[in-house]
Amino acid sequence: MSGNERLVYLPLGGAGEVGMNAYVYGYGKPGKERLILVDLGVTFPDMDTTPGIDLIFPDMSWLIERADRLEAIFITHGHEDHIGALAHFWDDLRVPVYCRRFTGHLAARKMEERGQDPEHIHIVGAHPDVVEAGPFTVSFVPVSHSIPESSGLVIDTPAGRLVHTGDFKLDGAPVVGEPFSAELWHEIARGGVKALICDSTNIHVETPGRSEATLGPHIRELVAGASGMVVATTFASNVARVKTLAEAGRDAGRSVCLMGRAMLRMVQAAVETGVLTDFPPVISHEEAEDIPRDNLMLIVTGSQGERRAATAQLSRGKYLGMELVEGDTFLFSSKTIPGNERGVLRIVNAFSEMGVNVVDDSSSLYHVSGHANRPDLEALHELMRPQMLIPMHGEHRMLRRHAEAGAARGIASVVAVNGTMLDLTGAAPKVCEHVETGRVYLDGTLKVGALDGVVRDRIRMALNGHVMLNVILDEEDEPLGEPWAEIRGLAETGRSKAPLVDIIEAETGQFLARADDKVLTDDDKLDAALRRAVRQVAVEEIGKKPEVTVVISRLA
Amino acid sequence: MSGNERLVYLPLGGAGEVGMNAYVYGYGKPGKERLILVDLGVTFPDMDTTPGIDLIFPDMSWLIERADRLEAIFITHGHEDHIGALAHFWDDLRVPVYCRRFTGHLAARKMEERGQDPEHIHIVGAHPDVVEAGPFTVSFVPVSHSIPESSGLVIDTPAGRLVHTGDFKLDGAPVVGEPFSAELWHEIARGGVKALICDSTNIHVETPGRSEATLGPHIRELVAGASGMVVATTFASNVARVKTLAEAGRDAGRSVCLMGRAMLRMVQAAVETGVLTDFPPVISHEEAEDIPRDNLMLIVTGSQGERRAATAQLSRGKYLGMELVEGDTFLFSSKTIPGNERGVLRIVNAFSEMGVNVVDDSSSLYHVSGHANRPDLEALHELMRPQMLIPMHGEHRMLRRHAEAGAARGIASVVAVNGTMLDLTGAAPKVCEHVETGRVYLDGTLKVGALDGVVRDRIRMALNGHVMLNVILDEEDEPLGEPWAEIRGLAETGRSKAPLVDIIEAETGQFLARADDKVLTDDDKLDAALRRAVRQVAVEEIGKKPEVTVVISRLA
Repeated sequence: MSGNERLVYLPLGGAGEVGMNAYVYGYGKPGKERLILVDLGVTFPDMDTTPGIDLIFPDMSWLIERADRLEAIFITHGHEDHIGALAHFWDDLRVPVYCRRFTGHLAARKMEERGQDPEHIHIVGAHPDVVEAGPFTVSFVPVSHSIPESSGLVIDTPAGRLVHTGDFKLDGAPVVGEPFSAELWHEIARGGVKALICDSTNIHVETPGRSEATLGPHIRELVAGASGMVVATTFASNVARVKTLAEAGRDAGRSVCLMGRAMLRMVQAAVETGVLTDFPPVISHEEAEDIPRDNLMLIVTGSQGERRAATAQLSRGKYLGMELVEGDTFLFSSKTIPGNERGVLRIVNAFSEMGVNVVDDSSSLYHVSGHANRPDLEALHELMRPQMLIPMHGEHRMLRRHAEAGAARGIASVVAVNGTMLDLTGAAPKVCEHVETGRVYLDGTLKVGALDGVVRDRIRMALNGHVMLNVILDEEDEPLGEPWAEIRGLAETGRSKAPLVDIIEAETGQFLARADDKVLTDDDKLDAALRRAVRQVAVEEIGKKPEVTVVISRLA
Repeated sequence: MSGNERLVYLPLGGAGEVGMNAYVYGYGKPGKERLILVDLGVTFPDMDTTPGIDLIFPDMSWLIERADRLEAIFITHGHEDHIGALAHFWDDLRVPVYCRRFTGHLAARKMEERGQDPEHIHIVGAHPDVVEAGPFTVSFVPVSHSIPESSGLVIDTPAGRLVHTGDFKLDGAPVVGEPFSAELWHEIARGGVKALICDSTNIHVETPGRSEATLGPHIRELVAGASGMVVATTFASNVARVKTLAEAGRDAGRSVCLMGRAMLRMVQAAVETGVLTDFPPVISHEEAEDIPRDNLMLIVTGSQGERRAATAQLSRGKYLGMELVEGDTFLFSSKTIPGNERGVLRIVNAFSEMGVNVVDDSSSLYHVSGHANRPDLEALHELMRPQMLIPMHGEHRMLRRHAEAGAARGIASVVAVNGTMLDLTGAAPKVCEHVETGRVYLDGTLKVGALDGVVRDRIRMALNGHVMLNVILDEEDEPLGEPWAEIRGLAETGRSKAPLVDIIEAETGQFLARADDKVLTDDDKLDAALRRAVRQVAVEEIGKKPEVTVVISRLA
């Protein structure tokens, strides 16, 4: 390592939010570093801020402009917020993608869905197997999370060893996958860890995390004690949970039926890749129709209230021939993500109206988180004794609390949000650059910038309604007939009980009749004046200032 | 009481939701009952389901059509979900409104704001004072809640005594207002209670409720230990909490400044009506600017993240000359209502970026609920030993759980959602009628029906964007020039990199050139065909099906 080379860290997504993870590491001369990317995820839109948007990506412009310096992409695990944007940006990056088998299975399908060659996905064995990528030597260390084959990355560089945890928890009995091994992590740390780049999602949870294995007895007891049909939902990718639920069904003498495309796909992927063994036998939904309710258990998608998923459909009535009735039991083996409460509660109340017994996680007997809580994070800090701690994957409040926890242990810790490039070469992290970052929206088939106004206009139409006014002017710039108004998202009639469009047409018509040539011959002046007139009518009639689109057609 | 008269209960709002309370009681011959209304509240809109709507009211049509049979309106307390719709419907009902002093103060101002005569609001003393209203004799029994002078109603009828709890909790030391008195309730129950109509909001909370008074020491300790400025937020109407916060500030040697219109108004109302005594001295925000941060405490509005309230404004920068800096402390002495999480977290993270120490209720040291938890509700059931239990004010899952709790005690209990009329005359409640109910939206200055499509169109524009296409046809029904397209909430350019509007105009222009007279002469046919054409272009170009408005102008 010669003096004028540096080791840098640059989060493009995930640092300042939960979701859309994308972390860049670089080593080399300033501005000439060779780069790797860890994870390339999405986050999800909501009606409040991103109506009509399909997915939200990190803005990858910085990296795309430097794609020639990018050596490889490493994916820690298969959750959408780590893998979901890969296929959408691969054409711009075009470097090999490395991950473990289960993750690779999901990644390959995503590539195929976007018409890309799944051959670009390279399957890597777990640590101590390594991948050489320019100045970086990377290995995948198995960690427990809420999806199979999650991995932390050990990233060896000329400037020292980095440990990027990915999403993880400490679980001695994760049901599926390798248990947490303090020995292994200790071994990894022995030579010294320059920087621990660490998941922050659960830093605010003060109690030690619980093992996935602790749920089995409670879920078994619940299912065994239930009469009628039992339906359970969880994240389809939480294959360990799905297995625990299925085993509880089997042990209670119930036939198990998986419902929802994601559920079937995930379990299939887990079986095909060998991460899931001895999963109880399952039946198809056609077969399920012939099974007495008391002998049936459904495991379904939609734990977050997604409108098109199985859970929501069951709350509205029949789904694939299945229907819940009074006395059935529905188990949410899941936690509601902030923002999804209303949707989930709508479903719970619909079930309540059916007389279905809904069991949620309020007792915390039926769900555990996939992320390390504060005591577990501190245990890892202790185990790794890194030179520096860089909290990642979390809202600002989480990164900050996590950095405080590190500092309290005497570890050089820093809060670095998206766009903050850290120089890790020295003894402590130094901010060396600020990079323009942001979000890019997938809207239909297009990527649109978060700030280019498309979403702003949608929100305005939703809040204010929309008036369209059409004016035709003849060859002499004289109004040809009355203006024509159309409304969308506004009441038909207002204060004066006459149709709002009639009043708008009359008022704007009178305005045109009075208007002089200076206005009539100037599209901008005319547009502005008509817009004002429409707004004024609307305020008087309905007490709202609508969005207004004026179309001026000039003959000849 | 002659045989063919009956006592009925009809919720028009609040039964099946938390919010928009409106309960009708009637006594008399079927169809001729004399009626009273208890509470007339609102619920609040959200972007997901009611974008642009200002307030949501219960549909009061049933009662308005029977206003001649309505004797009076009784308001249990001053929260918006009990009082907020009063002034909006009073003109349709025009009967005396009865409430206690503090509630009346708020009600009168709402009437004035809507240009109505506050004289219609009649102030009533607490039980044993009574109001005669047709066959009903009503008294206001003080209960603790999270606003001063909350009351349960004792409603005596020829068919027996009803007890309508309103929102309540059991609190032996509520800081402001009367402590819960088991003796008083026992006294009320002595003659027998026909039906207990009971708040269900917290039925799912299994632990006994805590007293408002338990917060004082914790809040005092927090404020005393803080350096820099301390800012606390809670519901302005929770005057007891505001007092506790202000006293903690005073005891820590800090000058106390109230910020936010609602905060000032509520405290003033509480002082003027005599419910709030010895409130610590407060200073104006102008005076606050000259006070050292270490000696200052602000108590502000916006605990639910409301965008225009003081808390949100402080999270964005200066508010009335005040600004938070690193090391300051911000206390949420409140619980986030489901649906508001995202907004509140946005603020918490903004404060985190400023280096402000945010303290929320996760420790449950700084907030208690104003509603009775399950054990407290059961204690009241026990105390009142009613003939029947009618759970009110709650989502369906809450009403159901509450009815189960009553039934478990051998009390005849029933889930009656909005629109379900119960006959309470006999030994057990009987469903005797189903009434059309629903919601009415306040949109600007208009009341619009929930189902009349206004909101649906707004949501569609927000999700799909909006294309407007204008076509002019001449006297011979021939297209005059090319169609003119405008877009809102859609990307300017799509797959082919040419402006979307150009492609739409070209495609629809070609369609018109090819179209035969059967189409060109028929507005409906032409409209449908052009709409299809626009959607097709949009799907090809941007992968979305936008909302389309076609305007066909025919000359001559």
